[in-house]
Amino acid sequence: MKNNLFITFEGPEGAGKTTVINKIIERLQQHNIDVLGTREPGGIEIAEKIREVILNPAHTAMDERTEALLYAAARSQHFFEKVEPALKAGKHVLCDRFIDSSLAYQGFARGIGIDEVLSINEFAIGKRMPDITLYFDIEPAVGLARIHAHNEREVNRLDNESLLFHEQVRKGYYEVIKRYPNRIKIINADQSIEEVVEEVWNILRMLVVQK
Amino acid sequence: MKNNLFITFEGPEGAGKTTVINKIIERLQQHNIDVLGTREPGGIEIAEKIREVILNPAHTAMDERTEALLYAAARSQHFFEKVEPALKAGKHVLCDRFIDSSLAYQGFARGIGIDEVLSINEFAIGKRMPDITLYFDIEPAVGLARIHAHNEREVNRLDNESLLFHEQVRKGYYEVIKRYPNRIKIINADQSIEEVVEEVWNILRMLVVQK
Repeated sequence: MKNNLFITFEGPEGAGKTTVINKIIERLQQHNIDVLGTREPGGIEIAEKIREVILNPAHTAMDERTEALLYAAARSQHFFEKVEPALKAGKHVLCDRFIDSSLAYQGFARGIGIDEVLSINEFAIGKRMPDITLYFDIEPAVGLARIHAHNEREVNRLDNESLLFHEQVRKGYYEVIKRYPNRIKIINADQSIEEVVEEVWNILRMLVVQK
Repeated sequence: MKNNLFITFEGPEGAGKTTVINKIIERLQQHNIDVLGTREPGGIEIAEKIREVILNPAHTAMDERTEALLYAAARSQHFFEKVEPALKAGKHVLCDRFIDSSLAYQGFARGIGIDEVLSINEFAIGKRMPDITLYFDIEPAVGLARIHAHNEREVNRLDNESLLFHEQVRKGYYEVIKRYPNRIKIINADQSIEEVVEEVWNILRMLVVQK
């Protein structure tokens, strides 16, 4: 019987997910835990090509349903080519953003509807939901200020959305959490990176290291 | 009250759809009928980029669910950017392949399931089904021989599928026709182009010209 876990990390832009995940992976490896860290499109060529279409700043005429379907398509390819084989090989998988991002961004903030976006995403992943999800909660204004201050990465089409949009995303996440209160744990991301790492580590240590 | 129609053309490879549609459009225009002829991706930049990802012969590792989602994404963009505005402007729209292709190819022949593929495609087009669909029926071996004999166009990833696959596609179309017996009319495509044009014209003349 396998008891390795599929763990996803969610939250608005600038919540520090990527930095924290990298530090958590280092710690897990120090405990000799077999772990794969990934994020869509994750170096999977087909998923990378799909993501290029989504994030191209020239594609301002993209229909919101097209966008939702493209995210689901990239998710499907990344999941079946990278995540599922790692899970079958007994690894824990830590994934930076997954289905809940689509539910919050496209389902709620774009107004398509959480149920509708859930249905195309269940199609995409064959209904294989994460075992546990850590939601990094932070004020959108604080998260966006972090991105612009640090120049951490290139600004893409989604970063250019208004603050109002990102506030809708946060409300969307809260709706998603109401649906999956057992799966999703809320992390306070408005702390130093070190403090967030400790909060995440305290949860994952129980589930992954000490069992 | 508008009574312009959204008309789709379906059928296996090499059934002669494209040639026939072009001749039908000419005739309709001679009758001063306002008509748009199109096919996915139809010059819509985002849909073209998506189609490039689908048909790239290097993408042999594409998951079947990814493929189905990409077709739905290209369909959504083409529909909302090109088909729906034309319908709203009062034109008849003739579209070479639409939702039934996905139901037959991905839903039935790839084995994903017609209901599942229908659900992501209804998401894509906001449940706006065609008013009438003409299905060009032909033995797959005859259709494929036509493509290879005429060198009509570049051979793509789908043409390279086995004859068995294309026979499954035909069975898939028959299943789809059972679900929509009123919407879908069967055209015998194993005749000369001139004869097929007459068969199609006799149906469309009733619906489009003489009303």
